[in-house]
Amino acid sequence: MPDWVDGHPAESLSIKDRGLAYGDGLFETIAVRAGRPPLLEYHMARLSEGCRRLGIPLDFQLMRTELLAFTAGLGEGVAKLIITRGEGLRGYAPPPVALPRRILQSAPFPSYPEGNWEQGVQLFSCATRLAEQPLLAGLKHLNRLEQVLARAEWQGSEYAEGLMRDQSGRVIEGVFSNLFMARDGVLITADLCRSGVAGVMRAALLDGAGAAGIQVEVRDISFDEFLSADEVFLCNSLFGIWPVRSVTGHHWPVGPLTRKLQAIARDLLDI
Amino acid sequence: MPDWVDGHPAESLSIKDRGLAYGDGLFETIAVRAGRPPLLEYHMARLSEGCRRLGIPLDFQLMRTELLAFTAGLGEGVAKLIITRGEGLRGYAPPPVALPRRILQSAPFPSYPEGNWEQGVQLFSCATRLAEQPLLAGLKHLNRLEQVLARAEWQGSEYAEGLMRDQSGRVIEGVFSNLFMARDGVLITADLCRSGVAGVMRAALLDGAGAAGIQVEVRDISFDEFLSADEVFLCNSLFGIWPVRSVTGHHWPVGPLTRKLQAIARDLLDI
Repeated sequence: MPDWVDGHPAESLSIKDRGLAYGDGLFETIAVRAGRPPLLEYHMARLSEGCRRLGIPLDFQLMRTELLAFTAGLGEGVAKLIITRGEGLRGYAPPPVALPRRILQSAPFPSYPEGNWEQGVQLFSCATRLAEQPLLAGLKHLNRLEQVLARAEWQGSEYAEGLMRDQSGRVIEGVFSNLFMARDGVLITADLCRSGVAGVMRAALLDGAGAAGIQVEVRDISFDEFLSADEVFLCNSLFGIWPVRSVTGHHWPVGPLTRKLQAIARDLLDI
Repeated sequence: MPDWVDGHPAESLSIKDRGLAYGDGLFETIAVRAGRPPLLEYHMARLSEGCRRLGIPLDFQLMRTELLAFTAGLGEGVAKLIITRGEGLRGYAPPPVALPRRILQSAPFPSYPEGNWEQGVQLFSCATRLAEQPLLAGLKHLNRLEQVLARAEWQGSEYAEGLMRDQSGRVIEGVFSNLFMARDGVLITADLCRSGVAGVMRAALLDGAGAAGIQVEVRDISFDEFLSADEVFLCNSLFGIWPVRSVTGHHWPVGPLTRKLQAIARDLLDI
């Protein structure tokens, strides 16, 4: 499957694009099964929120049609969608009339160790802390140097993911996933009003858990509370849910709430 | 003057480049006079520091040779240099062997109102606050959404620049320039250890002021202290120095220390 720029096969982009100059844009990493993105509505909702907050005038009808044509051609794999504000004048000021660019790239499904889903994973504790920026928090924008620095902190396969805290020490997320904890039967995930990426799998699981009658809370999580959790798991739209076995010498069992959410995740992702 | 990618005329870049995907890179905006960048050593020093902190293995000898060939061809104007980590695997992890990309773009000198230098400018007070991220502070990296949002806050010519404070309220910089204040004959500029871009003109002025026997301090500046300044000015490597006349109803005169620094700036920039 060739990549597309604005609906046409292409491998390159103008060096004047503001996506390159300033990271002035957004992206979505989209699982594709049997030619369809199972979490389509969640991806579109997050993209819409991102365009609204950044003031990028994307044609959503066109984008949606294009994405579905691309995923139909792809069949099985991962579609990465990048939206940029397009080319601009010199300087930070957004052009008066922006012509956003739509970039679609395909990749095979990444192969994760089988054991991650069943036995769970070990979490590396990243020294890189997330900055607090309410204006960008939650968005999957193209300014991702914090994730690049955090992901460069560990190599090898001992750790499947890294734990990211914010500058104040709150527990926020994984480098490429969101994080949930369970305590006394309540499912808790971090409030992403200051930092973090509000993953589509996180949003779908919050809906799914609510529909299944599980009590959910979205709020700040201190490191101490995190360590006192009964269960911890990670989620994203590609791997679904990985139970977390340990971080920095602290251990958790794989518990019943995690298994219940994994069943919900299977349904959501058609796996 | 055509733009260059890796030393050859080119207008486009692979959509797999990590500069686009994550803003994984750095840039320099370089004034060129008579075929030479007057602040070359300051640009190279900042770029070197940025590559060191981001772990980008740039060939500096090659970069320098290429930049000087480009500026010689350009003659007069602005050279924008973008360095990215190059193409990568899927995911945030930097590739084991990175092949950084070198992009050079040319533009004419921007035309600023003549009065900015003599009479000074009005500063818009931006609502966008800078996040605090010590790992990235000072670098001119490609994650610039905060500047895009801040610059979009005002239009028209009433305000020449915008004042940016950090999440804690400290006075940091302009959207596309650095900021100095003078108090009792001492020149003060913000410590950029948590946020901000350490401009090359700021660095050159700090050296120049020191050499001229002016006492300089680099430290935190509260908003109250800022308002109590005797003089305030902005600097960058394209416009030099603009005195600041006012922000949010508060007014400053154009003072003697500002005029002394303008003389130093003229020498530094060959204008």
